[in-house]
This record gives sequence, structure tokens and C-alpha cells, in this order.
Amino acid sequence: MTATIAESTRLTGQMLIAGKLVTGTGQEIRGFDPANGTLLDPGYRYGDEANVDAACAAAAEAFGPYRATTSEQRARFLESIAANLETIAAPLIARAVAESGLPEARITGEVGRTTGQLRLFAAILREGSWTGARIDPALPDRKPLPRPDIRQRAIPLGPVAVFGASNFPLAFSVAGGDTASALAAGCPVVVKAHDAHPGTSELVARAITDAVTAEGLHPGTFSLLFGSGPGLGTALVTDPRIKAVGFTGSRSGGLALVAAAAGRPEPIPVYAEMSSVNPVFLLDGALATRGGDLGRAFVGSLTMGSGQFCTNPGLVIAVDGPGLDAFVAAARDALSQSSATPMLTPAIAKSYASGVDALSAEADLVERGADSDNPVACRPALFSTDAPTFAGSEVLQGEVFGSSSIIVRCADVDEMSTVAAGLEGQLTATVHADDTDLDAARALLPTLETKAGRILFNGWPTGVEVGYAMVHGGPFPATSDSRTTSVGGRAIERFLRPVAYQDVPKALLPSAIADGNPDGSWRRIDGELTRD
Amino acid sequence: MTATIAESTRLTGQMLIAGKLVTGTGQEIRGFDPANGTLLDPGYRYGDEANVDAACAAAAEAFGPYRATTSEQRARFLESIAANLETIAAPLIARAVAESGLPEARITGEVGRTTGQLRLFAAILREGSWTGARIDPALPDRKPLPRPDIRQRAIPLGPVAVFGASNFPLAFSVAGGDTASALAAGCPVVVKAHDAHPGTSELVARAITDAVTAEGLHPGTFSLLFGSGPGLGTALVTDPRIKAVGFTGSRSGGLALVAAAAGRPEPIPVYAEMSSVNPVFLLDGALATRGGDLGRAFVGSLTMGSGQFCTNPGLVIAVDGPGLDAFVAAARDALSQSSATPMLTPAIAKSYASGVDALSAEADLVERGADSDNPVACRPALFSTDAPTFAGSEVLQGEVFGSSSIIVRCADVDEMSTVAAGLEGQLTATVHADDTDLDAARALLPTLETKAGRILFNGWPTGVEVGYAMVHGGPFPATSDSRTTSVGGRAIERFLRPVAYQDVPKALLPSAIADGNPDGSWRRIDGELTRD
Repeated sequence: MTATIAESTRLTGQMLIAGKLVTGTGQEIRGFDPANGTLLDPGYRYGDEANVDAACAAAAEAFGPYRATTSEQRARFLESIAANLETIAAPLIARAVAESGLPEARITGEVGRTTGQLRLFAAILREGSWTGARIDPALPDRKPLPRPDIRQRAIPLGPVAVFGASNFPLAFSVAGGDTASALAAGCPVVVKAHDAHPGTSELVARAITDAVTAEGLHPGTFSLLFGSGPGLGTALVTDPRIKAVGFTGSRSGGLALVAAAAGRPEPIPVYAEMSSVNPVFLLDGALATRGGDLGRAFVGSLTMGSGQFCTNPGLVIAVDGPGLDAFVAAARDALSQSSATPMLTPAIAKSYASGVDALSAEADLVERGADSDNPVACRPALFSTDAPTFAGSEVLQGEVFGSSSIIVRCADVDEMSTVAAGLEGQLTATVHADDTDLDAARALLPTLETKAGRILFNGWPTGVEVGYAMVHGGPFPATSDSRTTSVGGRAIERFLRPVAYQDVPKALLPSAIADGNPDGSWRRIDGELTRD
Repeated sequence: MTATIAESTRLTGQMLIAGKLVTGTGQEIRGFDPANGTLLDPGYRYGDEANVDAACAAAAEAFGPYRATTSEQRARFLESIAANLETIAAPLIARAVAESGLPEARITGEVGRTTGQLRLFAAILREGSWTGARIDPALPDRKPLPRPDIRQRAIPLGPVAVFGASNFPLAFSVAGGDTASALAAGCPVVVKAHDAHPGTSELVARAITDAVTAEGLHPGTFSLLFGSGPGLGTALVTDPRIKAVGFTGSRSGGLALVAAAAGRPEPIPVYAEMSSVNPVFLLDGALATRGGDLGRAFVGSLTMGSGQFCTNPGLVIAVDGPGLDAFVAAARDALSQSSATPMLTPAIAKSYASGVDALSAEADLVERGADSDNPVACRPALFSTDAPTFAGSEVLQGEVFGSSSIIVRCADVDEMSTVAAGLEGQLTATVHADDTDLDAARALLPTLETKAGRILFNGWPTGVEVGYAMVHGGPFPATSDSRTTSVGGRAIERFLRPVAYQDVPKALLPSAIADGNPDGSWRRIDGELTRD
């Protein structure tokens, strides 16, 4: 068994196109270990437009047979991927730790999250509501005209392009949420690997490809490509066979994909999860009773994973006073004791450093964490400013990816509301409130609903539960499409569209909308939910 | 009562911005009676960017209070609009008949359809599932980390711009499906009236405005503007306060709005329902047993309403043989006896005539209907061609809005499948099949699913039921967003987005996701649907 795993986890440095190992012909990249600054073997060469064409052609060919699989077959496929990832967990975790500089415990948790979300979608497939089955039975005697029999179910959109994210080498990457939800929906997937973890990407792609083979699926159901965003990424998004795009990354990267897709003759959905500063509102009662505790806990959330979370708390908003002073004092103290941990890549570390420099020019420095000899380390930074200065500065309102945050000191509750109303769209908005803050929180809530995809109380935004009710999304620029979520059960809906069947002969009806409910799923009949 | 109605239906020629009558300052347009070629009083002058600004500012201001209304309040509002339309039904029908040239019976039916869909959305609001309520209860003892309480509900996107369609002066216009579904979702609506029926638009806008007043809603909940598509329409779509767009019309008009929206800093959903030729497949068994009947029924569907339906059967595909000959003979006979009925506007009639000329150059004429002295009449036209000619011609594959259709004679079933596979996206695809055709239909069905939003058997695509299961949508270019429908219950989803509430204090939770299910609606708890 060990030999098998060692064999199956020997990296080749190749792409995987419809089950075949393919060597790129472009620029060579390598994994980079940010903990010690070393480049990792093997090299991975970028693919080109011919590789995009091959992957998309195979995906288009696979679409028919793949979407014809049953929910049960796709559930088993997702479970097979999860099991394969668990089989190679040890070498996979080792490689992901080396390529990310993230702690082993974090990466181990991320493997569990990745397999967990694959299994969540397997459960959703078996439960059956994902088909959105609706039946309006015929009314042959209706006047003035009889009503035909009309039934509705969802079908998959077609091949989906997924862009791996840098900061979650497993959960938002090759077999991450976008891939899991697209495969669940019945869409073949072509992944563009993120340059930050090519070895991890290859290992995961092979786990998926092995599951494709084991479950007897069309090899074009999955492909992995390496390449640049502007080059290969644009070619992928503009390929006419691609019918939807999932992306997690920077605002500039996401907007570039949105623009590339807008240039297509046929518009397609682009689900880009981009930029968020995740405002945290500290209300007076909470600050008065536990300002110091909040300050310490805040720094824990801020510095975790070198602040490389979409949901990192980059903005704190509170009314000036002794409670906020206690918060700041505790945060300063905790920050001064924090260590500089490595960031994912030299480019991210450089971008963080210049982002902090820009903030330094416009806000007051509260404290920085310890420095480090490691040139890619993230030295945490906390700033403060007043509400008018914040409102007047695009720099202060923008995201700095990493452990950087700004405290906005407001003169009163009205000013805090004004800051809230002026915010861009966010993935999350957090409120710390005690019982005495309920009225203030109630007044703030409608604004936060229009600003964020997730509103949380008395916690920290880092850490996104994978469940049925989660929303990881939000108004622009948090995402390019606020109608959906990239985490949680509803993510499958991003890759589906409804089709109505009018007076279709019973022998031809798909099981989801067949008479007698052979799938045993919830269906809406004449508007009423039923399992009959 | 009669005096009141007469008073309330005296046309002013003005726009209605947040409850106020406003006279435009631009170009003057008038309703046009296509039956006798006369211009109708009063004149309506186009609005300008200041009017767009005023309507959008009012809609943005109304959004907060309007979305804070209960489902029951919005249901009553929609019912109030429906009742107001019924109160003015006689003058409304008279005006709509005059402005459209459509038969009174058709317009009377359209009033019923319009009030029916307003009441459908009232029922959907009361049923409650539209909120998409989900609850993942807290698991405080979960290891390694406790799970927070996470709940999800949908909230409205914000102000919506609706563009009235020419061909349904009621059901797809000022109080049509887009407006009804957006208002149901909790979105204020700004309508750009279609130039083809300004008087009808004013009457309906006043019915809505009266309901806004009667229900005590914010006046900015609804506005009606007149103006050109490229001018006022673009200003409306690019206004940052507009968060979604509903449009029904031409491919060029829809694509212009999509392009305008793509130029916004913030991407928004654009639901443009555009172009469809609605292929009809005649299978061998059906042709053999009832080719002649099908030919006659086809002409009925083709010529109804001068062919001015999005779902008009513009394409017939069948295998050559005696059955198809019988179909063509009967269709020719029926067509030769059909009369030329007026089209909606001179521009539409001119576009139809040039479309038919273009087809004449590339396909064989089968038959034309009777000519007419009325310069805006639609003289029906039926062409035929072979599959290779059809496949090679963009002209033959394009939509000609009006009573024009092409029969594609295929050599065999394989060639028919090839034609199907080469089609663009469609609103509908129709199959005429007998029991002996089941295998052929089964083989065709997967292709049709990827091409159309609605698949119907042994009927005609004209006539779109308003119900829970209907899909009026489909892949591009039928629409710009195949994930939704513009007719039927699911249309409300186009104007909603999900928000997650994590550990939000019970006192602050919206009723849809509150403990004890005060709304009594279906909710998904830990993934299971329940009313508990």
C-alpha cells in the first residue's frame, strides 16, 4: 500500500488533459516553499491554446454522457474523489504545507474541509431537491383553453472553467468548492491551477482523474491546465464550449475575467469571488464589558494564516471612548507579541508590503508585529483613523491582502452608520454587541444586509462553515454575482438552468419529474411541496 | 363610478415619477393605430437624464422601506394593482387594441394574464418558500471546533429597470411579468415604456401608482419613463442605483443593454429575452398519420397575432417524404386563405418585409398569404430549403419577427439531428411525435434540452402558461441569462440574493428564519425540508 501511494504521488510536472499526462511547452514554474525560500521540484511548464482547445473539446464531448449519469452515480464519483484524497493525505499535506508555508494543522483541516464538501454535494445529489422539480398537471377541462401538463427540472449548464485560488490550496483549488459543485451539477470541469501550488494541484488532479476512471466516466469530465491568467486563463474563459466560470482571487484578476467573458458573443455566468475588507462593528456595550478581550481575539483572527483569508477582518468600526481604548490597547499588546509568519508567495508578500506602505501614508500606525529575516514574511500592521479621513480615501477603503487592519474611530453612532452606509460590498460584516446594544444593532442590520453576504455576531469572520445555510458571496466587489454562494449547498445552483417539459410523453420524462416520483424527492406540484 | 373611471383614464401624455406627473422635454411620440394608420392623442415627450436620475433616486430611497414590508403587504399591493387594472379594463382594452392592432379578444385575454400573474406572485409571497429559508443549528459540542448557528434567507437586489415589450402591451410591459416579479421580491421598479403603446403604458402606470398610494408605500416604489433605448434606456441601465434589468425585445436591443451594463463598474444581472426561431420537429409517424392536420394547425400558430410572438414557430424540420408533402400542401392551402393582419408598428412591418425579402433570396418560397392595402400589414410567408443550405446560411437561421417560417427538408433522421445540433439557443423546441416515434424522440431530446428553455410535444409553442413550472427562457441568444425564467413562479428568484446570519441574536432575526417558524413556511433545517 505504501509503495502504491509513493508511486501514485510521484510528481511528473505535467498537465492532465482528459486523463492524459501532457507536458507544457511554455514558461516553467515551480512550487516555492515560503518557509525557507526554496524552489521545489519538479518544474511545471505552462500550457498553450492548443491545450485549452484539447481540454475544452474533451469537456464538451464528455458533457452529454456526464450529464446523463444519475445523481447516485455522481454522488459516488464525488465520494470516490474524497476517498482518493484521504488515501494520499500524508504526501498531499506535506506537499501543500511546503508549497504554502501554512501550518500542517491548518492544511490537515483543509483536507477535511475539501473531502467534507465533496461529501456534502454527494448528500445533496441523493436528497434530490437540487433538480428543482415542479409539476403543473394538465387541466383538460379548463376554460377558455385547456392547460397542458408542464414540468420543470434543472439541467447542467455545460463545461465549467475553474481557477484555483492561492490561499486555500485544497478547499478553493483543484477539487475545491467550485469543482465539487460543478461536478455535482453534471458539468465537466477544466481547472487552471494556481501557480502557487503546482505540486498540490497535480496530486489532487490525479485523485480526481483516478476517480473518473474508477467510476467509468468520460475522461473529458476533468482536466487540469497550467498557465498564466492573461494568456491561458483568457483563452479558457473565451472558449465557446465553456459555459460558466468559477474564480477566487484578487479584484484585478476577477475583473479581468469578467471583462474577458463580456467580450464573448455568448454571455456566460462568471462567479468571481474577489475583494472584501470584512468590517467589524464594535458596539458600545460590548466594548464596555469586554473591550480588552475583543482586542486580543481580533488579533488572533487578523494574524491567522498570515491574514491570507478572503474574510480577514481588515476594518474595525467603533465609537471613540474608553471601551475602544481598551480594545486598542489589548490589540496593540497582542500584536506586538505576534510573530511574522510566511506568506504564500513572494508576489503576495511584496503586494502586502506595498499595501501597508500605502496605508501608512494615510492613517496612523497603531502597532506592527515583529519583523522577520524571511523576506516573504507577513509583518502584521494595525492602523487607526477617523471617519472623515476614511470616507475620503480610496486607499484606506481598499483591501490589503494579509494581516493588516484599520480602526475607524467614529464620533458617535450616527457617524458609524454613515461609515457603514458608505462601504462597498463585502463577503462578511461582523457585529460585536451585548444585550444593551440590541437597538443599535437593529438599526445597523438593514444596512449590513445590503452590504454583505454573511452577517455574524460576536465572532470573527475568518472560518467559513461548509453547510446548507452558508453564504460565501456578497455584493460587488466582494463578488461579480451576488445571487449565489461559492461555499455551501446552494453553490450547485450556479451551474444549473431550468428546462420546462410540456406534454412530454411519460415514457420520455426524466425520473426527477416522472409520474409516481421514482426518485422519492421533494417536488412542487401545482405550487405545493410534496414527496408524493 | 363611470365618471371616476373616465376621469382616471383620461390620458395626460406625461411620465409618472415617484407618484408625480412629469412632462418630458424631448422628442414627442404618439400611439399609432396600425388598423387604420392614424396617430393617437395625446403626445408623449421623451424624458432625459434628469428624469432618470429622479426616478432612480426615488427608487433607491424607496428600497429600504419597501423591502421592509411583509410578504403579506406586498401580496396585497400586487392584488391591488390587479384590481385597479380590472377596474379600468374597458378603457384599457380599448386603448391597447387601438395602439397594437391586436384583436380585442386577445387583449382581453392579456389583461387576464397580467392580473393572473400579479396574483400568482401574491400567492407565492404568502406561501413563503421564496425566502429560501435555511437553518443549520449550532453544534456547541462539535470537535475540534463548535459550529455556530447559521441561517439563510433571500433579500431583494435593489431597484430594477424594466423595459416594456412591444408585442405584449400588458403582460410583458409596464405591469407585466418583470415588474410583478421584481415588486414581489421587494425591489422598486423603474419602467421605460415601449414607444408602441404609450397610452396603455400611462394607464397601467397610474393603476400601479394608485396601488402604491392606497397601500401606503413609498412613492419611489414605482416610476414610468418615456425615452429612446440608446439614450434614456442606456442612462437607466448604467445608473449605479439600478441593480438588475429586465428586457423583452429584439436581439440587437437586448445585446445593446447587455453591453451597456458590462460597461458599469459594478456588474448587474441583465435578463434580456431576445431572439428565438422556435424549431418544430415533425417526426415520421406523426407526419404519416396527420401531416395535413399538422400543416393547418401550424399555420394557425404561425399567423396568430401577425406572428408577433417570441415563441412563433419560425422553423420546421422534418425528413422528406409523403408525410411532409401532405404537411406542406395543407400549410400552403391554409396560408393562401390567411389574411394580412396589421403589425404593431410601421418599423416592425418594415423590418418584417425586409426579413422576408432576405429569406426569399436564399430559400424557396412555398406560399404567401393574402396581400393588403394596409402598409403595416403582415403578409404571411412560408419558405422551404434543404439542410445543407440551411446550415450554411446565417440569414435562414435568424429570426424574422412576424408570420414567417422556413421548412427544412432533411434527407434522413441523421440529417435532422445534425440540424438540431447546429441550432442556436431557443425559447422553445417542439416535437410532433406518435407512439411509433418514441425512439426517435428519445434520441432527439438531449439535444433539445441543451438548446431550449421549454420542450413541448404535440402542440404549438405560441401560448405560454403562467404557472409554477413554466420556463420562458433558454440558452443564448434566446436570453442573456439561461439560469432563469421571465414567466412563472421562479421569475421572483431573478431579483433576490441570499444572506447568511451567523449567531445573530434571536431578537434580531427576520421572521422567515426565526425560531418557531412564525411564518409557517417550508424551511431547510440541517438540509431537511420541514415546516416545523
